This record gives sequence, structure tokens and C-alpha cells, in this order.
Amino acid sequence: MRIAQVAPLWESVPPTAYGGTERVVHWLTEELVRRGHEVTLFASGDSVTSARLVPVSPRALWHDPDIEDPFAWVMRELGMVFEQADQFDIIHSHVDYFAFPFARMVRTPVVHTLHGRLDVRDLPAIYGLYRDQAFVSISNSQRKPMPDLNWVATVYHGLDLRQYPFGPDPEDFLVFIGRISPEKGLHWAIEVAKRSGRRLVIAAKLNTKHPPDVEYYEKYIRPELGHPLIEFIGEVNQQEKVELLGRAYAFLFPIDWPEPFGLAPIEALACGCPVIARRRGSVPELMQDGVTGYTGETVEELTAAVGLIDRIDRAACRQYVARRFSVERMADDY
Amino acid sequence: MRIAQVAPLWESVPPTAYGGTERVVHWLTEELVRRGHEVTLFASGDSVTSARLVPVSPRALWHDPDIEDPFAWVMRELGMVFEQADQFDIIHSHVDYFAFPFARMVRTPVVHTLHGRLDVRDLPAIYGLYRDQAFVSISNSQRKPMPDLNWVATVYHGLDLRQYPFGPDPEDFLVFIGRISPEKGLHWAIEVAKRSGRRLVIAAKLNTKHPPDVEYYEKYIRPELGHPLIEFIGEVNQQEKVELLGRAYAFLFPIDWPEPFGLAPIEALACGCPVIARRRGSVPELMQDGVTGYTGETVEELTAAVGLIDRIDRAACRQYVARRFSVERMADDY
Repeated sequence: MRIAQVAPLWESVPPTAYGGTERVVHWLTEELVRRGHEVTLFASGDSVTSARLVPVSPRALWHDPDIEDPFAWVMRELGMVFEQADQFDIIHSHVDYFAFPFARMVRTPVVHTLHGRLDVRDLPAIYGLYRDQAFVSISNSQRKPMPDLNWVATVYHGLDLRQYPFGPDPEDFLVFIGRISPEKGLHWAIEVAKRSGRRLVIAAKLNTKHPPDVEYYEKYIRPELGHPLIEFIGEVNQQEKVELLGRAYAFLFPIDWPEPFGLAPIEALACGCPVIARRRGSVPELMQDGVTGYTGETVEELTAAVGLIDRIDRAACRQYVARRFSVERMADDY
Repeated sequence: MRIAQVAPLWESVPPTAYGGTERVVHWLTEELVRRGHEVTLFASGDSVTSARLVPVSPRALWHDPDIEDPFAWVMRELGMVFEQADQFDIIHSHVDYFAFPFARMVRTPVVHTLHGRLDVRDLPAIYGLYRDQAFVSISNSQRKPMPDLNWVATVYHGLDLRQYPFGPDPEDFLVFIGRISPEKGLHWAIEVAKRSGRRLVIAAKLNTKHPPDVEYYEKYIRPELGHPLIEFIGEVNQQEKVELLGRAYAFLFPIDWPEPFGLAPIEALACGCPVIARRRGSVPELMQDGVTGYTGETVEELTAAVGLIDRIDRAACRQYVARRFSVERMADDY
């Protein structure tokens, strides 16, 4: 099939560090090419792909200090994709509502995989006009705010296991990886570490341009960084991340928002690292208590879970990912 | 003719206070209806029009505290307009590049009036793909960064003179009306007032969410507000503005950016108030030295101009606007 993959331009495909959507688009694209499809990837020009790349912007928009008006590039991408719509058998969009009005104006079928949260106040204004289009959710819980869309499938993200070496023999530390922001719950992770008397390694990024995150950091995180159990190592790249996950005793995921998928805990499991997660968003459907670690609601429950982690088989965690979250399974589903 | 007017959603049509683009769209729409055209106005739902209104959003986006994701509304508007493109004989877009990719996908002719500056780094990325579309500039100087577009006309803005009462007998003060930001040059206006020993009334808005403006205000403007010649009266509405212009001795327009049109000095002239302006952007082609006031380059030249204002005939200023910048002339040109 002639497939167009329409990626966000904010990060390259694959991304250099953060960028869950672009990473998943990368794996899916590579797998589709491997299976013999003729894939065209619309993405930033610093992307690296086996598909035919249409470089919409010279560089990923987030990392390009010259960008003044990013939506000029977004509209450029949509124009480039949909003007040549008849060159494709299917257009697979990962850019959310920006593609909706265009999709209705072409004959080529378009499928939208939605990567974001759907409980944002303004979204019904645009989703309401296009609910008949073909939507793929990345978890069932993601659908909740918009049950009436024409959902054609839930396709869980898959990852390339070869990029996640298995770590059978953990050290004693807990790990938190992610953004420093209220909804990611780093302050809960710190509390769980202190209560369970375990070391916590924090590999996290603070977006200094986002005032609520800075305020949260100053108020709840910075005062804790002097604690002997807390070790803050800043942002890590993909290589450092998997190395850290392979050595960690457990991965803490104490989120306080409806995370539509959550790639990080799946990455942890792939490395054999059990996950202790708060039951928000997709967590209940992605995790399996007693196999992948434990889920809970309160700080007390999450702290108690740390004491149970010895019961979890790290090899079974990896097998769980291989079975449910491989890139092959993802490509099959699509 | 069946005409679609596609207005920005940021302000209502007409706007309550600031919003030059929406004000011009309003006047043009009213005049086209008056001439018997069947006009459909796509705009925010709090707009007031003689045309058929398609309310895209409940309220103007800037004034709606509930808005989290304004581009959902922008895409909604484009979808609504271009899906019914065949209902119109012409689509007149005022939303800049967002409409370009859509315009190519419909049979109805689309004309884009460009309201913004074109020297923004990212714009060639999108304009370059669509240079064959039909573009109207609002001044000749606006075209400079993009001489190769398919420019079909320059149509200067026109205003409804009935909304600008003539003020034949000025008081002794100078006036500055506009945003407090470096490119509007309020610090120059203050300097001109102090050097010429005249009172300056400042009717201006500070966007506290825009850090460069706040920094500029703190550093260059606030320290001057205690000066006996400087009177800061905050933001004014349309009614207060025209009343102020009718009483002012001269309007200071010491801009430091390529203003593509600049409605404010035309409004001043309509009230009979001469304009002292810096030669930037459209100023040289819109103003006429000795008739509308004086233009200059330096603080010294602008200060010297204050001493020449007695030579300017306030009635001639108004006639100048009636001849060159009426809404009838604008509608004729379109």
C-alpha cells in the first residue's frame, strides 16, 4: 500500500530525547517499510527514516531557535500532504484536529490516531464537526470525554524491544523519569521514596518557559533535593534512560492526570523494571497488578507497593511488553 | 454577488476596543451589504453585522477566559467556510496563511487580504507554496519582503467617517494612542513632548502577558509617568478615542517597525487631528507632509514638526481622509 504518515513537526522522527508521539510514528513507519509498504513520511527535515521523507521544515520546531511562527509550518505540512492525497491509498495523520477539515475534502481515506488528551474545553468545537471521520484511540480511557466519535479501533503503542536491553539484576533505587510538572506527580514519588526509605533517582526535565511548572518546582521539588535519599540527575537521553531503567528497582509513575497512553512505564517494563503507578487515565488497562508491578490510589498504597516489588518477575515484565506492546503487534493492529 | 467574508476570531466584528483588522472587515461588510451584495460573515458569535452571521465561536477568542486551545476554533472556521465554498461567488479571507491550502482545494475564487507584517522569518515557508493565489496588500510597503507574490491590488483601508466627528478647535496637548510596546515608540513620543514643552496624553494598553512589553514599560515608560507634562489615562474605547482625537493638537506616531497600514493615524486625521509620524512602513505613502502633518526620522525632526503644526488645516486633514480613505473608496477598490 502507498501510505502517508503525517507526523508532528515539533520533534524529529525519531526524536532526540522527549517526544512520545514522534517515537511511536518512527517505529510504526519502520515496521511498515519492513513489511514492504510504500511509505511517505511527512516530518521535520532532521528526521531519519527508511521511508521516503518529505522534509516539511529544516529542523524540529521545538529545537529551532529561529522559529517565530510555528503554525506557518503546520499549515505548510497540511498543504503538502493533502494536495497530493491521490498519490496515497491511505493517509495516517498524527497531527490531531489540524487535519480534520482537509480529510473531508479529499477522496483518499484518512485515519487519525489521536495522541493527546481529549478533555480540553475547546476540542468539542472542532471534533463535533468531524465525528464521522475514522479515529484511532491509543487507549480506551482516552475516549471517555468523546464517546460519540467514530472510533474504529484502539491501537496501543508498540515499541522496538531491541532498543530496550533487559536488566535482570536491579540495584536498590527507585526511578522517576519525565517532566517536572504537577500532573506527573514527582512530589508523590519523593514522598513514596522517603516513606519507604529507598533512594530515588530523578531523571527529569524542567520546562523553564512554563510558569506553572517552575512554580511547582520551586514550591514542592527544590526543597526536597537536599534530602539524602533524593538524587536529581537532570534530563537523560534515550541511551541513558534505558540503562537507568535496567538498573532500577522500580519505576514510579504517580500521575495525577488522564494520561492517554504513557510510553514511559512500558519502556520501563521492557527493560525488566516493575512499575508502581497511580490509577489514572490508561494505567488500569495497560498495567496488570502482580505481573507488571502494582497500582494504587494513595501515597500509602504506592508506598506499600514498594515492599511487594520483590514478588515481581523482571523477565515476566519484559515478556508482557513483548506480547502486548511490540511494534509488530501495533503494525498488525493498524 | 454571494460573498463570504472570513474574519479573524480574536476580536468580534466590530471589535469592542482594539482590533484594526476586525474593524475594517466590519466597515467593508456593511458597505457591501448596503450595495446589495449577499454577504456571509464568518466571525465570533458576539459580532454584530447586517450580513448573515455564521458564528464560529461563542465569543471573541481574546476575551474568552475559557479558551485553552484557540487553534481548534481557527480550524473550525476554515472547515465551515471551505466546505460550503460552492455557495459563494467569492471568498474574501482575512485570516492570512491559514486559508492558503484550503483555497487551492476549491473551485470558488479566493482573495486574501493580508493584514500583518510579512518580514517574519517563517512566512516564506508557507507563502512560497501559494504565491500564485490572489493577494491584496494594505499598502505598497507591506509587499517589500515578498515581491514575488501574485499581488492583484493594494487596497488601503477605509473608515466610516460618520463615526469620527470633526474637531475644529484643538486644545494644546499631544496624544499617543496604541499599545505600549517598543515598536510603537511611546518613549519617543514622551521625549518629543518634553522637548517641545507640550502636554502628552497617553491612551495606551499594556499587555501584561507579553514580557517584552512589560520590560519595556518598566524600563522606559513608568519612570516618566511622574513628569508634569505626561498624563497616562490607560485604555480608551472607540467613543473616548474619537473624542480625544478631536481635542488633540497633534497625534504622535513615532513607530519603529514596518507598520503595514496603521489605522490610528487615519482615524486621527478623520477627526481633524494632524499626525506627526516616523517614516517607517506605510507612513510615507499614507501621509502627505504639509497636509496631514509632518513626517521625520529623528527625535529632533519630530520635535521640530510640533512647532509647524499651526500651519496644518484641520479641515483639510479630514478631507484628505474622505478622499483617500473612505469605506466607499475601499469597497470600490475591492
